[in-house]
Amino acid sequence: MKERDFIQNVKGLHQAKAQFLVKGIGDDCAVFAESDDFCWVISTDILVENIHFSLSWHDPYLLGRKSIAVNLSDIAAMGADPRFVLLSIAIPSSLDAIWCNKFNDGVASMLQEFNCTLIGGDTAKGALLTINISILGTSKPQNVAYRSSAAVNDDIYVTGLLGSAAAGLELYKHKEMGNDAFRNFYKSHLDPQPQVVAGSMLADSHLVKAMQDISDGLSTDISHICKESGVGAILYQDRLPFEKGLENVCKLLKLNFFDLVLNGGEDYQLVFTASKTNRKKIEELFYGSEIHPVIVGRIRQEPGVFLEGEQGKRKEITFKGFEHNSRSNP
Amino acid sequence: MKERDFIQNVKGLHQAKAQFLVKGIGDDCAVFAESDDFCWVISTDILVENIHFSLSWHDPYLLGRKSIAVNLSDIAAMGADPRFVLLSIAIPSSLDAIWCNKFNDGVASMLQEFNCTLIGGDTAKGALLTINISILGTSKPQNVAYRSSAAVNDDIYVTGLLGSAAAGLELYKHKEMGNDAFRNFYKSHLDPQPQVVAGSMLADSHLVKAMQDISDGLSTDISHICKESGVGAILYQDRLPFEKGLENVCKLLKLNFFDLVLNGGEDYQLVFTASKTNRKKIEELFYGSEIHPVIVGRIRQEPGVFLEGEQGKRKEITFKGFEHNSRSNP
Repeated sequence: MKERDFIQNVKGLHQAKAQFLVKGIGDDCAVFAESDDFCWVISTDILVENIHFSLSWHDPYLLGRKSIAVNLSDIAAMGADPRFVLLSIAIPSSLDAIWCNKFNDGVASMLQEFNCTLIGGDTAKGALLTINISILGTSKPQNVAYRSSAAVNDDIYVTGLLGSAAAGLELYKHKEMGNDAFRNFYKSHLDPQPQVVAGSMLADSHLVKAMQDISDGLSTDISHICKESGVGAILYQDRLPFEKGLENVCKLLKLNFFDLVLNGGEDYQLVFTASKTNRKKIEELFYGSEIHPVIVGRIRQEPGVFLEGEQGKRKEITFKGFEHNSRSNP
Repeated sequence: MKERDFIQNVKGLHQAKAQFLVKGIGDDCAVFAESDDFCWVISTDILVENIHFSLSWHDPYLLGRKSIAVNLSDIAAMGADPRFVLLSIAIPSSLDAIWCNKFNDGVASMLQEFNCTLIGGDTAKGALLTINISILGTSKPQNVAYRSSAAVNDDIYVTGLLGSAAAGLELYKHKEMGNDAFRNFYKSHLDPQPQVVAGSMLADSHLVKAMQDISDGLSTDISHICKESGVGAILYQDRLPFEKGLENVCKLLKLNFFDLVLNGGEDYQLVFTASKTNRKKIEELFYGSEIHPVIVGRIRQEPGVFLEGEQGKRKEITFKGFEHNSRSNP
């Protein structure tokens, strides 16, 4: 059973209006509120050894950091402020106290970086290392950025480079380690930086319409926005931002360049839409910061997500992104 | 590394005062609040195949129910009202859509029973079935029952029978299935009933002082209350309530009776303390209901938990309870 099918199934079963619930299943976070001017957002992620990470190249400190980072990214996608984390972990007996302490140090460092507090958790024995994080953030209800708010003619932005994390993963899988030229790709895979500041600035500005994080690849994540908003999208092939050297990785490993850029998972950048009349304001919002969102496409009425290449040729790429452990090329 | 050590380690690392946080790590739930007259409680539990359950005897519908029940029990232990659930699941490819649908039906039935809504989740592939639930409840800050509120001379109550779930588990482990005389033991293990109503009534009454659920065995769970409250406890051997037939199970499987009653995990009853001047009020509170808390001991100043047997003989049983998959006799 595919992830999306299981979620759809559960979503169908448990569709409900409930007291305090603002938004249930179907976005990066659920949203609940007791009052009109303050709300909580919550998300959960499960990370399984040999599916989401490999202990053969992921050091415990960085794995601790990444476990928190991927969840912070969901908070960022709503434009909320991260607050609390709950950490469940099933630990194989092969991992000793030194390993656990390093993992904990990594968790602590990422929590500290984003002023977030661990408030609960659970531990168990397990044949495979399995980590589950639940994360809570806060916002104002009118600031929360949903997937469902994209409008026809909106610009589509991404906050940073695409395909780097997938390239890093492929380098490790192919045992191409320790090459200084590929430093940024390793880092993108091992120690991604969640875009909490960008998300929060965009939400506070009220310039953003729809937003979500790029965890499964831009093609899939913009498809979510389109589906929830009842629109379609065109992405411009020549505008997609990528790290210098990505083409060298593709050449070395015989990988398809656009597959990495569009469908590579775990970039943990944000994709968002905004009215094209606000281009200048968005530029000004990030002026002087290290965040440089770039326009990579536009929203349109016709459903489906299409990549527009040379001479205006279009190719459908709706939901073509990454599912963990399902990439056909190793 | 033992569960408790890992939690202590994490607790040490992340001890922090944070905005909105009322109570962090160290109770059945963490508590957070935006206002003075309303609060949220949250807990998380990870369940791992062959550690917390076995697919050889746990049918998917009942496993779905139990996954939610063990988390509802944490909400009950705070005296709060369950609200929202997030469900993460790593599913082996051997479990097909029929299995998943039955599991989901079980989840839905338990959610419905307690008026609780699924608001998020995550799914992944995994070599072993792993289920993580995070659960949210609501309460009033002045109603929340903590482990740390027990006082010297308090009575210690339990809300129901002890050792039944452990007996059920042992029957399955020893392949003693399908015996109608043991029906209640099977049910206690497969389909436990969380004491949400009892917890909520106790909290609303303000008669309860310390409370927690009995998930690791009474000896361990009353030890938590004693540790957090800075007190000790005496349990009366001849007052411990158990299911008729438990002695027969012990005889059949050559198990120690008091080991099951005191240290058997997963009863999901509540243990709580209350002033002995309120005995009559507590009796009246549950009059006409199906809930019949019984006094099984008393809180005292001297640290440690002791079982008082015949002729007043005492034996220390502090933290002797169940850790999953660590019972030395099969």
